[in-house]
Formats: sequence, C-alpha cells, structure tokens
Amino acid sequence: MLMSKFFLPTLREVPADADTISTALMVRAGMVRKIAAGIYEWLPLGLRVIKKVEGIIREEMNRIGGQEVSFPLLLPKELWEETGRWHVYGKELFRLKDRKNSDFCLGPTHEEVVTDLVRSEVKSYRELPLMIYQFGVKFRDEIRPRFGVMRAREFLMKDAYSFHSTEGDAERYYNIVCEAYNKIFTRCGLKFVCVEAETGAIGGKFSHEFMVLAETGEEVIATCPVCGYATNVEKLECVEEGISFAEEMKELEEVYTPNLRTVDEVAGFLNAGSQKFIKSLIYVVDNNEPVLVLIGGAYEVNESKLKNVLNCSQIELAPEGVIEEVSGAPVGFAGPVGLKTRVKIIADFSAKNIVNAISGANKKDFHLKNINYGRDWYADIVCDIRKVKENDTCVCPQCYKINRNRATKLKFYRGIEVGHTFKLGTKYSESMEATFIDSDGKRKYYIMGCYGIGVSRVVAAVIEQSHDENGIIWPLSVAPFQVIILPIDFNNEKQREISLGIYNELISNNVEVLLDDRDERPGVKFKDADLIGIPIRIIVSEKHVNNNTVGIKLRWEKEEKAINRAEALSYVKEIIS
Amino acid sequence: MLMSKFFLPTLREVPADADTISTALMVRAGMVRKIAAGIYEWLPLGLRVIKKVEGIIREEMNRIGGQEVSFPLLLPKELWEETGRWHVYGKELFRLKDRKNSDFCLGPTHEEVVTDLVRSEVKSYRELPLMIYQFGVKFRDEIRPRFGVMRAREFLMKDAYSFHSTEGDAERYYNIVCEAYNKIFTRCGLKFVCVEAETGAIGGKFSHEFMVLAETGEEVIATCPVCGYATNVEKLECVEEGISFAEEMKELEEVYTPNLRTVDEVAGFLNAGSQKFIKSLIYVVDNNEPVLVLIGGAYEVNESKLKNVLNCSQIELAPEGVIEEVSGAPVGFAGPVGLKTRVKIIADFSAKNIVNAISGANKKDFHLKNINYGRDWYADIVCDIRKVKENDTCVCPQCYKINRNRATKLKFYRGIEVGHTFKLGTKYSESMEATFIDSDGKRKYYIMGCYGIGVSRVVAAVIEQSHDENGIIWPLSVAPFQVIILPIDFNNEKQREISLGIYNELISNNVEVLLDDRDERPGVKFKDADLIGIPIRIIVSEKHVNNNTVGIKLRWEKEEKAINRAEALSYVKEIIS
Repeated sequence: MLMSKFFLPTLREVPADADTISTALMVRAGMVRKIAAGIYEWLPLGLRVIKKVEGIIREEMNRIGGQEVSFPLLLPKELWEETGRWHVYGKELFRLKDRKNSDFCLGPTHEEVVTDLVRSEVKSYRELPLMIYQFGVKFRDEIRPRFGVMRAREFLMKDAYSFHSTEGDAERYYNIVCEAYNKIFTRCGLKFVCVEAETGAIGGKFSHEFMVLAETGEEVIATCPVCGYATNVEKLECVEEGISFAEEMKELEEVYTPNLRTVDEVAGFLNAGSQKFIKSLIYVVDNNEPVLVLIGGAYEVNESKLKNVLNCSQIELAPEGVIEEVSGAPVGFAGPVGLKTRVKIIADFSAKNIVNAISGANKKDFHLKNINYGRDWYADIVCDIRKVKENDTCVCPQCYKINRNRATKLKFYRGIEVGHTFKLGTKYSESMEATFIDSDGKRKYYIMGCYGIGVSRVVAAVIEQSHDENGIIWPLSVAPFQVIILPIDFNNEKQREISLGIYNELISNNVEVLLDDRDERPGVKFKDADLIGIPIRIIVSEKHVNNNTVGIKLRWEKEEKAINRAEALSYVKEIIS
Repeated sequence: MLMSKFFLPTLREVPADADTISTALMVRAGMVRKIAAGIYEWLPLGLRVIKKVEGIIREEMNRIGGQEVSFPLLLPKELWEETGRWHVYGKELFRLKDRKNSDFCLGPTHEEVVTDLVRSEVKSYRELPLMIYQFGVKFRDEIRPRFGVMRAREFLMKDAYSFHSTEGDAERYYNIVCEAYNKIFTRCGLKFVCVEAETGAIGGKFSHEFMVLAETGEEVIATCPVCGYATNVEKLECVEEGISFAEEMKELEEVYTPNLRTVDEVAGFLNAGSQKFIKSLIYVVDNNEPVLVLIGGAYEVNESKLKNVLNCSQIELAPEGVIEEVSGAPVGFAGPVGLKTRVKIIADFSAKNIVNAISGANKKDFHLKNINYGRDWYADIVCDIRKVKENDTCVCPQCYKINRNRATKLKFYRGIEVGHTFKLGTKYSESMEATFIDSDGKRKYYIMGCYGIGVSRVVAAVIEQSHDENGIIWPLSVAPFQVIILPIDFNNEKQREISLGIYNELISNNVEVLLDDRDERPGVKFKDADLIGIPIRIIVSEKHVNNNTVGIKLRWEKEEKAINRAEALSYVKEIIS
C-alpha cells in the first residue's frame, strides 16, 4: 500500500475526550473515529488490525471444530421472553418496534438465537457435541460508555456456543475452549491471566475471565503468590472479622440528628468513627420485593454477591417512596431497629459484628446509638456481601481451604477483560425446552457452554500493553502492516527506485508493506511511522544508497541496523517467521 | 471439511413459506434459517458463499483504490437531520431511543456518516479523489419482506462512496466503478445487464442498476433490440397517445351510482369500458400538501415519476379524512370537476386525452359522464406519470430521439437488482456543508458518488440463475467448496483409505473440499450433494477402487467420467483454473 493513497488521518494532538492511552493512540493513529458516545467508526488502519485478530481467533475456533455462522442483530422479543431475559436484561438492552409495532431488541448476546436454532435442527446425541460461533456486532446500552472501544455501546465480538449430551463432555470441551483462548491471546502478543469470575446476566454454573494485565484496566484481579489462584475481586469472599469482645454492650440510645443523613455527617456530629456505623440500604429485588441490606460503615455492597444471595436477576436501589414506606422515615434515617414494614433483612458480617453500633432510627432526624445484633436487631441472612477493598487483608480462599490459620495475602492487579467463558449447564435449554434424544432413547436437555471474546477490545488491550511515548508498538501477529518503507526523500530518483524495488519484492513475497511515498519532511514520516507502530521499518537514505545498504529498525528497539540491500528481504522474512 | 463434522441441516421438503426457488433451495441446502419476517441466520454453508462473494468484491474494490472501513450501525439522529433524511426516510427507517432518550436509527445506508467523516478529515483537493467502502449490515423496515434474503429487513451490503474535486473526475470514476461492477458480477458467474434507473431515496443526478436476469425478478427491465438501450421500466417514459377526434364531445351528465366506487363497479353499472374512466387519486405530498392525481382507468400511477414531477421526497395516498376534505364526498367519488377544496391537479396524458370520460362527481353516490379536458376540467400539470405495462407499445427513447417516426418496440425482461450506482453530485456535501479547498484556494463542495452491492442478494441471484430440479449448481468462483468426495461406502476400508488420500492431497493443494464420510445410504449422499451444488464431485466406489480410477462428475453435466486415480488431482486443478 502506498501511503499517499492510504486513508490514514493521523493527529499530533491527544484528543480531549480520550480517557485511556489506547483511545488516544487509536484516534491519533487514524484507526478509529467516534460518532456518538460509545459508537465508533473503524478506519482502514484499525480495520486491518481487527481482521488480523479475527483471523487468529477464527483459526483457533476452527481447529477445535467450531462451525462459523452469522446471526442477525434484530432479534424478536418472543425468543427473549422464553428465557425471561426480555424483562431481566434491563436498560442495557436496546429495544425497538418495527412498523407493525412488533418488539425487537438489538442482540447483546445470542444464547436464545443459537438455542432456538439447535433445538430445531439437532435431534440426536449422535450430532453432539456441536460448537457454533460467529463474529458479530453486539449492542449494549452502557450507562457510562468509556475507555474508547473498550466499553462501547456497539462493538465486535466473537461469540461461541457449545452443546453437549453429558456434563462430562461439556466440561471437557470447556477446557478445550480455555486452551484455545490461551493460544489466541498468546498469539496476539498479550500478557494475560485466566481468573474465576462472576456469571452475571449470562448466568450458568461457573465462568472464567481472560484478563489482560494493564494499569488502566477496569477490573481488579486478586492472585495468590503461594498457590497461583486468581479471581476477579468481584467474586472474592471477604473473611469474617471477629467481634471485639473487649467492648461491653451499652444501653440503646436515641439521638437527635437534625438533617444529618450520611455516615460522614452523623459521624462528625456524634464524634464517632465510620467503623461504628451500620449503613442501611433499601433495595428493590426483581422490580418487586423491597429488602433491607446492612453493611459496616466503611464498606460498600458488592451487588453481584447480593444478587447471588437473593437468587434474583435484578436489584436496584429503592426510590424515595419505597424507602419511606419501608422505614417510615424520609431517606437517610433507615436502620434495622423499628422498621415500619417487615421486609427481608440481609446483613453483611461487617454490620453484624459491630458492638454498640450507630444506625438510622427509622424516624425523621433521629439515629440510634449502641445497637447490637442479637439484642436489638436480627437479620434473615447474615453473610458476605461486601466489596473487597484494595487494602483489605485478603486471604487466598484456596490456601484457606487447606489451612485455615495460614492467611496468605492476595496481591491485586488491574486487568482488561478480553474473553469470558461460561459453563451454562441447562439454564437456556431448560427454559427454551431444547432437547435431544440420548443413546438411551430418553429426551434430555442439552448441556451448554458459551464463550466470548471482545474482538475490538483485544485491539485496544494490545495497545494498552504495547506502546511507548511515541506511539503504538504492534506485535507482528496483529500488525496492520508488517513493514514500512521510509525513503528520506521520495523525490530523489535513486531512493524512489530502491524503495519501489524493495516494496515490490516484499509484496511478491506476501509481506504486508506500507511505503511512505509522501512528499513530507523526514521528521513527519518518522513521527507517523512511530505513531502507527509498524514493527519493521526499512529506511532508504542517501547514505544507505551510497553504501548499497538499507537501514532496518524494529519498532521496539532503539537502534537502526545497516543491512546489505540484497539481504533485506531474507532479513525481514527471518524476523517475521 | 468432513461432512460428519459439518453443521449442514439439509431438508427434503420445500418449506411452506418459500416464495422463490432460491429461498426454497437456500433453506433446503441448510444455508439459511429465518427467525422473523425478513430476518435470517446464515449457517456455515451459506456463510462460506457470502465470504466468497465478499472476497471477489473486496478484490475489485481494492483494485480501483477503495479504502475499506467499518461504520457503526447505530446512527445518531443529528447526522440524519442535517440532510433532512430523518424526516424523509419514512417508515422504512428503524428508529429507537437509547437509555438517555436520544434518538438513533439503524443505518439503511451511510451517506451521512461517510460525508461527516470526510468533511472532518479531508481538507484539500490534493487528498482527492477518495473512495471509501465497507461491508456492513443494513436495516430497512420493508412493508412486505419477501423473496427470502432478497428483500429482507436486515441484509449484508457493500456500500462505497467516492469524493471528487470536479464533476469530470466524478464521472470518470463513476465509469471505473461500473467497470469494476461488471467484473464482479461476471466473476460471480451471473448473466446481468446494466440499466438506467431511478435514484429514489438516495437521490442524486443519475443512477444505474445492475440487474441479474431471472424470471422471478421483482424489477422489469426494458431493452431495445435495435440500439441496446436498457432501463428499469420505472424510469421508462410512456408515449402520449393521441386524442380520438372521431368522437364528438357530448353534454355533461350526472348519474346516480349508489355505493359504486371502483372503476370496475361503475363500468359494469354504466356499461362502459375502463378506457372511458378517469381514475382520481388524492395523495399527500411530504406529509403536508394534498394533490389530485388523474390517470386513465386502465393504468396505474408510477409513484417515482409522480415524485419527480412534484419534486418532493415522500408521497402517500391520502387518508379518508383528507379525501373528504378535498373532494367534499366520501372515498370513491372524487373527480376533477367541482372539488370542494382547490388543490394542485396533476393529470397523466392518458386522462387528459379521453373524450367524454367518466369520473367521480365529488358527491356521495354520483358520477359524471362526458367530462372533457379544456371544457369541464383543467390540470396544473399534464405529463407522463403512468406505469408502463408489459403489453404497452413501448418506444425506445434513444431511437425515438433520433427519429420520432420510428417506433422501435422495447422488449421486457424481469431482473433482480444486485448493484446500484449513483452519481450524487453535491446533494449530501451541500446539505452537510462538506467542503475542501481547491487548487485555486477556493472552498468547494465535494462531488460525490455512491455505489452499492447487495451481497446477500447476489447469493440468491446466483441460485435463481443456476439450479436444476435437484438443487443448486454453484459456479466455481462462489462455491462453498470446490470439490465433494463421495465414497459409496465409507466403512469399506479401501474406499475410506482412497477417499482420505484424495481429501488430504486436495487440501494440501489449497482446494476446498468436503468429504461425505457419513454412514448414510448412497442415495442420500447423492441427493445431498446435488442439493448443495458443489461443482466437482469425486466418486469412490468399489468398481473404481478395482479399476484404480475415481469417478468425476461436474454438477452441470449429466455423465460421470472415470479418471485414473493418480490423475485426479491434476484433473481437478485444471477444471478449477
């Protein structure tokens, strides 16, 4: 490709709204442009990288027997009602009506579609296992689109679904997919870990995330330096800290706290630390049942733990009206003692174990001091529902299982989730009555797995891990071009002739090459070449012409090497292989 | 690919809702499945053909300097308001709101997006011409989805857009694209014609359609056997037929026609032929202005001609209320004489030239007899707005231009539109203020062209042209596999060994091959092979094993040939090349 003919709008300035390094570099390198919050155009340079990543994924999916299909994006409501996800999915699902007023959504994932296909077409255990995959656009109406293409509302995903006749086969295949994922991310040049993860809206029995290690990652990964256990902290259990028996229970006391609502406000007024507080949160479960959730004042609720405890699909903080109805007081004064309405109470260990705690009094402008679990208040469920904090004492659950006294501290890293595998079991096949006839003649539900890779996110993750102050540094496997030829002066006849000679030679050897034939100053050309990060740069200067050499510089090295011109091709081919 | 591992759900029965041969064959051959009206899944066999067609198009687009990008599907309303198409596009545009209540549409075409990109990134005439293209899903909420993937609501399209600094360059490039289209459709093995066409909702100065000739085609093409002129009949002018001066004007007469509304009803009652009738239709123009349209009773209105005459973007038949308001009578009794409200009247020649015509009286249960143009009624515009009918005397407009007396009759064919090119001019660049600085230092609007190919429609069109009673006959260029190996008995050791030997040999020679390793009766295997239409079939039978031969049969030939086994590879390679 001649650079003068290539649509490559590079920028010198960092775009104002770039919130990550990869976003800034992708926009500056002319890979993408944003047309609305979380919605991007892929320009030629970016699309070439997407195709490379796609190619690697396709090879590995085909290698493990995957059958590539292409599913539609407009999905009828009826399918989503069969699994109940039309209602469960919430506001993240883009919904629309056609001209006949029928309901559709834009597919955020395709479990319903693939299960519907397989239940109509696959009847016998003999046709199993079956793995179907596709590359397709996905839509999720993120509440806060951010990090460029990494948390976009429209993005490219590889989604795969497998169907099995036995649990054992499903687990065997789950591991095969995980191995394929390891190969894929390794081939993309990524440093990553595979961690235990939450199943979220997809559901199922267990799941793993493939996390690319990067300081800008959204996710926090906890790993154990002793046994190697790794997990998303979302999933990490908190150890119950013991009650301080040193303190004696005091008498319950009501205190006047006019207009003081938050922990900090009341703590300041009562001259107490936040560790003495019980935070009281009222949630609405599945758009229906209100519950009271209690947690120590210094902690936050981990909503996926809470959902698991409640075994529900959706929770939301209650609106004002519900809070008043449950507590009998305006927002800010709820607490476990003396609720107006009896609701289910879920308490985190951190709330239960506070001696002489402070909480709202369920009465306008009043709080209670010295409330104690077992004496003044009770909970229906006491368990772990808090978020792990980065400085918590975190115990490796694997090591803890073996020896309860040995509290191995976990180390925290930040990561970008690029892949996610789910052992779904029969969640979808049961709700959609998707069955096959087994070898014993009995009708059974398929055992399913599903496996996603965020293709556009992989591209950004590669950049997060592989860049310097001058731009992107592409690994050869996903580089948009392997080689860039940079003549210092393309108008110089000798340099032009040599550049074009090498260009044609590389092309006929199937090397992807960009020739900077622009009439620009050398500085501009070098800056652009650094920015777009092509791995192998061949420099054609007057000095090189005179010495019968070319300069070769690898993007990740400092120094340029002079190579005999006749040997340039074999040198390049060696680096590529 | 081993057939036992390939997800290929073939059917013996023709699906009940298949309204074309290609739809029936695509479903039966396991290429596609429908999940809702006009919304299809592409299964592995179908997707392989899509990728072949895509590959051919991509090669030819790159050859003429195209820059491949990927645009988003969710498009913000703001862009579509700049060109006014948010309002113009009507119900065919799928519209939706995000969680913040912002308006989006699902892209049916991407002129706005590409113009927005180019106006931000391309500033100088030096960067022109520029052609940007993509393969992408398109959404159009068809009022009546039909013909399988051919008139679907979600489909795959290649859309390309070019930007130029001069009219001359835009026209030069327009021709280059048309040549590339010729190559593409020829390479896909299609018989097609390029015809003059209407510009429709895309707009612009002129346009051409690439029509695949097929009896099941939706479009009618008129071609001149003398000069070769070809056009979509939509665009074809009708010749004004003269007034019959033989008949004298009679006196206007009001007749009582209780509850008789249609031409046929009134004609029967008055014992007159439909050629005596003037049909009166009230349209609403651009959701705003009502107009009265008059046409001879035997004809239909060509709405694209009417739109051109009215220079508007949308017309719809008026609702009942508007009809009553304009005519002063209920539906069925409108006519040109004595309207209640003065509106613009457009008459087709066929209405104007009827002597002693019959029309509605603008009065409930009454019609008028013997109305005559110039005496009883007038029109604001008299022109050609009628649809050409297949048995009309159609005059070649090219030949007619040269010699008005020589009425060369046009021949009609049916066709499937697979490509459409538009010379847009400055329609989009003006409305979106998209400019560049020309060599003279002046700011100018880009001159644009746009060029589409219905990728999924091409696949169906190939099948419409190339099939027999047993199934599809793929041209080699777009075949999902080039070769199918069909052992009569795969459990026979000798046959299995030879089949696998040829299979591996072909694969290592980059031939795409399917091996029918299933434990099925030969009849089933032959039927499936015919149905899915793989061009080259290699048969391995006991007789062939004994004779050291294989059978080779081409899908489009009747006879199988015995070929020496050692020569099979070179024989296949010769056919492919």
